[in-house]
Order: sequence, then structure tokens, then C-alpha cells
Amino acid sequence: MTDNRPVYFTDDKLTALDARYEAQKLAFGPLAFQAARCLRKFGLLEIVSGAGRRGVTLEQLQAQANISDYGVRVLMEASLGIGLCTLNDGSYRLTKTGLFVLTDPMTIANFDFNHDINYQGFFHLDEAIEKGEPAGLKALGDWSTIYEGLSSLTEQQLKSWLAFDHYYSDGSFGLVMDKVFAKPVTRLMDIGGNTGKWARACVSHDDKVQVTLVDLPQQVALATQAIKDHAGAARVSFYPTNILNPELGLPKGHDVVWMSQFLDCFSDAEITGILNKVAAVSDEDTRIFIMETFWDRQKFEAGAFCLQQTSLYFTCLANGNSQMYHSDVFRRCVEAAGMEIVATTDDIGVSHTLLECRLVN
Amino acid sequence: MTDNRPVYFTDDKLTALDARYEAQKLAFGPLAFQAARCLRKFGLLEIVSGAGRRGVTLEQLQAQANISDYGVRVLMEASLGIGLCTLNDGSYRLTKTGLFVLTDPMTIANFDFNHDINYQGFFHLDEAIEKGEPAGLKALGDWSTIYEGLSSLTEQQLKSWLAFDHYYSDGSFGLVMDKVFAKPVTRLMDIGGNTGKWARACVSHDDKVQVTLVDLPQQVALATQAIKDHAGAARVSFYPTNILNPELGLPKGHDVVWMSQFLDCFSDAEITGILNKVAAVSDEDTRIFIMETFWDRQKFEAGAFCLQQTSLYFTCLANGNSQMYHSDVFRRCVEAAGMEIVATTDDIGVSHTLLECRLVN
Repeated sequence: MTDNRPVYFTDDKLTALDARYEAQKLAFGPLAFQAARCLRKFGLLEIVSGAGRRGVTLEQLQAQANISDYGVRVLMEASLGIGLCTLNDGSYRLTKTGLFVLTDPMTIANFDFNHDINYQGFFHLDEAIEKGEPAGLKALGDWSTIYEGLSSLTEQQLKSWLAFDHYYSDGSFGLVMDKVFAKPVTRLMDIGGNTGKWARACVSHDDKVQVTLVDLPQQVALATQAIKDHAGAARVSFYPTNILNPELGLPKGHDVVWMSQFLDCFSDAEITGILNKVAAVSDEDTRIFIMETFWDRQKFEAGAFCLQQTSLYFTCLANGNSQMYHSDVFRRCVEAAGMEIVATTDDIGVSHTLLECRLVN
Repeated sequence: MTDNRPVYFTDDKLTALDARYEAQKLAFGPLAFQAARCLRKFGLLEIVSGAGRRGVTLEQLQAQANISDYGVRVLMEASLGIGLCTLNDGSYRLTKTGLFVLTDPMTIANFDFNHDINYQGFFHLDEAIEKGEPAGLKALGDWSTIYEGLSSLTEQQLKSWLAFDHYYSDGSFGLVMDKVFAKPVTRLMDIGGNTGKWARACVSHDDKVQVTLVDLPQQVALATQAIKDHAGAARVSFYPTNILNPELGLPKGHDVVWMSQFLDCFSDAEITGILNKVAAVSDEDTRIFIMETFWDRQKFEAGAFCLQQTSLYFTCLANGNSQMYHSDVFRRCVEAAGMEIVATTDDIGVSHTLLECRLVN
């Protein structure tokens, strides 16, 4: 990997007094989260924002809000320590943090995902770690992984799940197309092709390329439907398989192998196993692309933080044994499968890194 | 009130970049809370602490911990953005925040209370505010207030509830005894006497004083049992009543009225109503003491924050209409009942303020 990345988390920056406050913010984190959510849901942050520099008094807020005077008071007072508002001479004003909670799409996607999908299940995080299974998932339904349950989620839950999923992945595909097609591509294998979004993008981008979409049988069935009316659909073929079954291999004869946010759904050993299967159908000229979100390769500390916490969603709710990885883990898996990383491109879209790999001679 | 208190929450101190990070910390607050809890529960913070300045590698942690290597990795990586550990050249070290989470009794009491009592119920904070009732309580049991349910809590839940309750109140009684008994006290009325802790302290402190403990009938029954073997128990009498029943008054003939962390269990209008009842049985010489935790009169910003969030426990779980108040609310209630505050003493114990009041001529 290139080594020009910022390095975070090296210093203990806080005074003892600030650290003590920080510890209380952590200890009251679930309450502050729900308070912030209610401050937005009940329109209080919007009223404060609308008042701008002149601010708004508690009484004015109570007159405008659709909740009880008591509710306005406890929420607005909570907003102070949480850091969403300031209070001067009786007037509340929005802070920058409050503005992000009110208007920033990433912050809103995180809040909704963590309330609708994660909040209740995370009561069981300790159990998930002890059992090595997504023990928090029972708060949503009786499935062994969330992928089985997606079609059974409520409308609101699915909306929040998709908004979170899409926020981080939307837009990255277009940004890497030129790298993948920098050399002529005759046949491309898309492992974990999911709904066929990448496959559609490829056949649109290049009017000759043939794409093989590899995924679980039920996923292939959905992708087939999603692709069939797309221009170039005739150049997409499907290869249903269970990638974790050691007896099943992959199809040969592709000059590009593509895996986007696929390997992070597996444990280290499973990742190495999948890459071994890729190696078995590759030769020296096969270009193998891996697109992932690595917490150690983010431009901003906040991005690294979001990925570190999102790891716990995989631990507690998704499947119990995967995560948002440190790039070193992937490098070791790549090397263990007899490959090397020949190029690393960071800062694609919100948080992606593209690894180009090839077989070692 | 005296006006030499520190004033917080007046400035928006963060840069936009830091505010954006802070917004993500809020949005992932429930996950960070549970991760911090697990880092402590599974002994990881203790191992890191034990390694001191030299630090400890992930591999060493995995060798010493009793959870999976995967569990250690996701938790330790989460600890970085949460601010509990630093990472340098592969070695984890504890931060000051991590030390508070590991060893500080207040931080631990807050964590346990918020996990065992509040976490699951707070999913329903919005509903509690909309309905004006403690809608989160259903996560613990089918009661209309938590006070009814205390005897039905699990051992762990009750332990966490009491540890939180006691952390903030223990020790304050002894610190104010000299103020209450600065003038001779013949008869003292303890309204909301609860388990009789204050009544016992009074009869021990002064071998002549007579105490009247006022509370709900079922509470009086418990207090009677708790006091009966105490020296001076013969000087404690009981006055069971429902303080909110407008047809029921209070007994006359006391030269001191004492209310400690009692009025905060009620709404503003109810507080004024109770103080009116006190006024009706007082004269110009009656000294009326109110001991409370006011969020605006804390020495440290973190203390104010804890009280602002604890307000929401009253909203969501305890009874739905009370809170940890701003002292101005109490001043207005005192004045509305025809009294005035003659002395204010802050910084008693962890977070208490003592108000001495009397009838206005």
C-alpha cells in the first residue's frame, strides 16, 4: 500500500477534565442519541436554525412546537450538553454540530440506520461477541443473518438500511470505470454481483464486454430480473454458486475479476479462501480488482470512526464474523492467496479504496 | 440565587471539521456505548491499562482475552475512534477517557444505569414525549411509574438503579446537618422521607428532635420497618398521605420542613401545589429546606450534562413529567407559593444545592 495516508488515534489529546466529560458523554450516549433524534424529529432544531443569529427563547419554541411545553424544555436543555445548541441570555442558537444533525445527509443516514436497524439489537453486543453470531438480530426478526431478513423488514427499517448502504456506495462505480477499462476487457467476472448494478454499468460503459455475475442462487434470481430490460442485458450471464462451499470453483476465462464491498462480508480465513478460488481461475494477465472501505485509509478521522463502529453492526446484526477491515488484513489475505497488490487508489467517492491485484509469478 | 456560578453552553467551540466528527459520535452513540461497555466487561481495558506506557499489541490482547480473536479486534479498533485507546507502532495504550471508563465510580454507575435501566426503553423516547407518559418503562415491565416496579426489577437492574441513586445522594446528608440544626429544632417534618435515611440521621444528630416522616402509605410502611431498630426510633412518627391529593393537607407545628430530592419528581405546577401546602402549615419562623440537583448550578460542565440527560430518564422511564431542573424553575415555584429563598449553598457532595426558604411577610 502507499503510505501517504493520515495517521489518527496516536495521541491522547484530552486534559483529565475534558476526558472525564468525554467519559460521561459515552456513558449517556444512548440517551443523547435519542434526544438528538427527537430534537430533529419534533422540529426543534429546525425552529432554532430558522431563528439564526438572533436565537429563540424557550417560550417561543414552546409556542411553535407541536409537543408539550415540558417536552420542549427537557429536550432543549439536553441539547446544550449534547452540543447541538448554545444558550445566551435566554436565547437558543444552533451550533455547527446541530447544523450537521439537522441537514447533513451522511449524519442523517447514520442516525436513521442506527435507530431503525441497530439500536435495540445493540443491547446484545456482548452476547454477539461471546457466541460469534449476530445475537442482536433477534430484535428485528428470527433470521440467522440480516441478508435473509431484508425482505421482511418494515418499510421504515428497509428505507434506513438502504439509505445507509447507498450513501456509502453510490457514485463510486462511475469513478473507477476508467481504471478497470484502462486496458481492453473482453470478459469480466463480477463476484458478489448483488443486484447487478456494476454489471449494468459495465455493459453500458463498454459495448463489447461480457460480464459474468457470480452470487448466491436467490441473489442471481433477483439480479436476473433487475437486469433483463437493460440495454446490453444479453451480454450479462449468471453463475449461481455458494462461494463458501470448498467443492465449488469459479468459471475460467475472464481477464478482469471484480469484487466490490463483497469480501468484507467474510472472515479473514474466508477471504483468503475466496481469493484462492480467484487465483485458481486466473493467470498472470488477469487483473483482479477489490473495492473496499478500509478504516485506516480514510481522509478524515470521522470517516475512520464511522467504519470502526459499522464493524460492530456486522458483529451484532449482520452476520457475526465480518467487519470493515484495516487494509493490512486484506494485504495479508491477498498475499496468502499467491497475489500481490500492484496499485492502490484511495478517496474514491465517500470512503472507498480500489486495490488492483495480480498473481505473483 | 447567588450569581457566582460558572456559565456553560454559551459558545460554539468546534471547528466545522470537529463538529462533523462530533455529529457522527452522536449518531453512533448507542454503538460506541455498547462497545465501551464490552471493552470493560471482557477485560480488554484492564489488560491495556496493565500494560502501561509500553502498551500491548493486538496479538497479545488476543492471547490474554477470553473472547474470540475477531471479537478482540473489532472492539479494540472501535476503541480508537471512541477515544478509549491510542495506537502507535502496533501498540494499544489506555487514554485518560479509557481510564475513567475503567475505574471512575461515577462513570461506571452511569454506564450500568444506562445499560440496565435505560437502554432498551430509550428507543421509545419520542413516544414518551408525545404521550406525556414514561413510554420506555414497558421495556422493563408493565407499571405506570418505575417506583411501582422497583420491587419487581431483576437483581442486576435494581443494583444498577440503586448504585446510580446512591452515587449522587450518598454523603450529602452529613454535609448539611449543621446548617439545618444551626438553630434549635424541636420538630422537623421530612416530606418524601422515603426509606427514612434522613430521619435516622436527624434523631442521631440531635437527641431531642422529633421527626415527622411524610410519604405515601406504602412507603411509610417500608420506612417504619427500616427505622424501628434505630436508636431514637421512638422520636420518629409517620404521616402517610398522597401529597398530590388537593383535599389532603400537611400536619402543623414543625419549625423545620425538609424536602430532599423530592420535588424534582413532580411537574412545575405540582411543585407549586406542594409548596402551597407547606406554606399553609408554616409561619414566619418556619425554616423550609429544599435540597436538589440543579443542572445550572454545577461546578463542572460534565455534571450539568449528566443532569440534563438524567432529566430524560424521568421523561422516558420514571414518571413522564419531571426532570432535573434549572434552579430558576424552583425559584419561580417558591415565589408562587408565597415564599422567598434566603440562602443558597452549592457544591454539596457530588452535585447538590441546598435552598433555605421562608414565608414572605
